[in-house]
Amino acid sequence: MAYLDRVFHSLSDGTRRAVIAQLANGPASVGDLARRHHMALPSFMKHIRVLEESEIVISRKTGRVRMCELRPDALTAAQGWLEQERQVWEARLNQLDSFVETLAAKENARGHK
Amino acid sequence: MAYLDRVFHSLSDGTRRAVIAQLANGPASVGDLARRHHMALPSFMKHIRVLEESEIVISRKTGRVRMCELRPDALTAAQGWLEQERQVWEARLNQLDSFVETLAAKENARGHK
Repeated sequence: MAYLDRVFHSLSDGTRRAVIAQLANGPASVGDLARRHHMALPSFMKHIRVLEESEIVISRKTGRVRMCELRPDALTAAQGWLEQERQVWEARLNQLDSFVETLAAKENARGHK
Repeated sequence: MAYLDRVFHSLSDGTRRAVIAQLANGPASVGDLARRHHMALPSFMKHIRVLEESEIVISRKTGRVRMCELRPDALTAAQGWLEQERQVWEARLNQLDSFVETLAAKENARGHK
């Protein structure tokens, strides 16, 4: 799976998006995150693993506690891709607009002859 | 599956992202899109269906040709979610920065006593 495939796949689940939203406010332990989602640790760990594989989250074990932290680069890459497509799309709409305006102006000029 | 789940799932595949990039430049027929991806029509139609389910693409049959068009609202929703999280994340980093600056200023003031 390509990098952006993994990033968007990570984002395609409500629990994982909620974890990202939570970690945007600061690091948290896996235990705390799991409790908030009323989820058994093994099921929750699968989500954390998906987030780690896409490099959205890194986790480190300090003693008995595994702490999670957000890495914003993957999210920036996803946002960048979307922004790029939006720009292509908008440039095309602007071209269509000016094409229609040119047509209308020609039509108008012809009417005044 | 929730709306954003479907949108991000659609974006998690390279072929589907390429179709979006292509349709940002203007509508195209399913046949033309499939040929460009060197894919058999039935396999390709699965990708189109996923894109339609997430409301990123709409298709209409005109005579014997099925034309696809991009609907940018779903992409805007995805971009909006990412932007919101980025803002939370950056606000936190700015708070951390000013906290560290305040500490440094206090430390400095103490040094000058």
